[in-house]
Amino acid sequence: MDFTITTSKTQELVDITQEVAQLVRDVRKGLCNVFVTHATAAIVINENYDPNICTDFLDALNRSFPDHAGYRHDLVDNNAGAHIKAALLGPSETIHIEDGKLVLGTWQSLMLVDLDGPKRRNIRVEIIS
Amino acid sequence: MDFTITTSKTQELVDITQEVAQLVRDVRKGLCNVFVTHATAAIVINENYDPNICTDFLDALNRSFPDHAGYRHDLVDNNAGAHIKAALLGPSETIHIEDGKLVLGTWQSLMLVDLDGPKRRNIRVEIIS
Amino acid sequence: MDFTITTSKTQELVDITQEVAQLVRDVRKGLCNVFVTHATAAIVINENYDPNICTDFLDALNRSFPDHAGYRHDLVDNNAGAHIKAALLGPSETIHIEDGKLVLGTWQSLMLVDLDGPKRRNIRVEIIS
Repeated sequence: MDFTITTSKTQELVDITQEVAQLVRDVRKGLCNVFVTHATAAIVINENYDPNICTDFLDALNRSFPDHAGYRHDLVDNNAGAHIKAALLGPSETIHIEDGKLVLGTWQSLMLVDLDGPKRRNIRVEIIS
Repeated sequence: MDFTITTSKTQELVDITQEVAQLVRDVRKGLCNVFVTHATAAIVINENYDPNICTDFLDALNRSFPDHAGYRHDLVDNNAGAHIKAALLGPSETIHIEDGKLVLGTWQSLMLVDLDGPKRRNIRVEIIS
Repeated sequence: MDFTITTSKTQELVDITQEVAQLVRDVRKGLCNVFVTHATAAIVINENYDPNICTDFLDALNRSFPDHAGYRHDLVDNNAGAHIKAALLGPSETIHIEDGKLVLGTWQSLMLVDLDGPKRRNIRVEIIS
């Protein structure tokens, strides 16, 4: 199963918990893996009740891993920073399913991280029950 | 299946390899995913023979991703740094199981990382055989 | 199933996509988890069309998480930086399988990251269909 998210900024976190939750409604028990098939995007689990957390997360990430820090690949495609951060965060998360629901803590949301947007991003969900 | 770990410090790594190993003893072959259902904690795989590695790991993480670095969420809950580091490290690890044992390298241990302790942390283990 | 990769440098990314792809050829649909059983190595998904990305990735990682930054474990084994980076990146990635193929984006490759080479590294692949 898959779905797409169209981002609107260069860097953006988009909450995809509801999209994934809908796909597991008929699964009694198992695991699902949510995977973004792009080398400049990532999937993370993060708080979303205070949306400032998403801005703080991107700020901290850019401070430690700044774009355009003399990267060789920037001469080719000018998005080395996005590739580096995507590899660091990783393209997928695995979540437990119980009684048709994703097992997440109260403050955990599943999020797409676009690091080289705005773009249309494909997200795949594989369920093992 | 799940279990809880009560941490005793603000930031702490706790080896949970034995707790998880006990839960997979009757599984011949498969995968298990170990997931902490809190947005200020993480699961990592790290060396534990020299416990200094855990202190070094937290030191390095705090140097690159310092707490209270002007984060917006600190005005709300004062734990933005814990959220950021939890999202970076990720809430779960997947480990192979063979003949009732976790397949880990000699120096690999499974660890809970509490980034906003001390707290009681819930850890879930889902096994697919 | 497993295979070994012998690295030739202290720090090196090695593309292992083809090695893993061969092992899933007969799987119609499922997940595979690729896991390196060493505490100073990691598995990431990264671009590989421009090999400069791999050099840029290691440069960025070493700038944020430098080796020999006063770590306690360096007095014991002098490779604390490799352990820290391995725990940060994680020892495994989970990839979807469809019709005998790994489901990766055009620019995504599966890579072993050796952070304390050159060494012979064991990589395990567990498939759930």
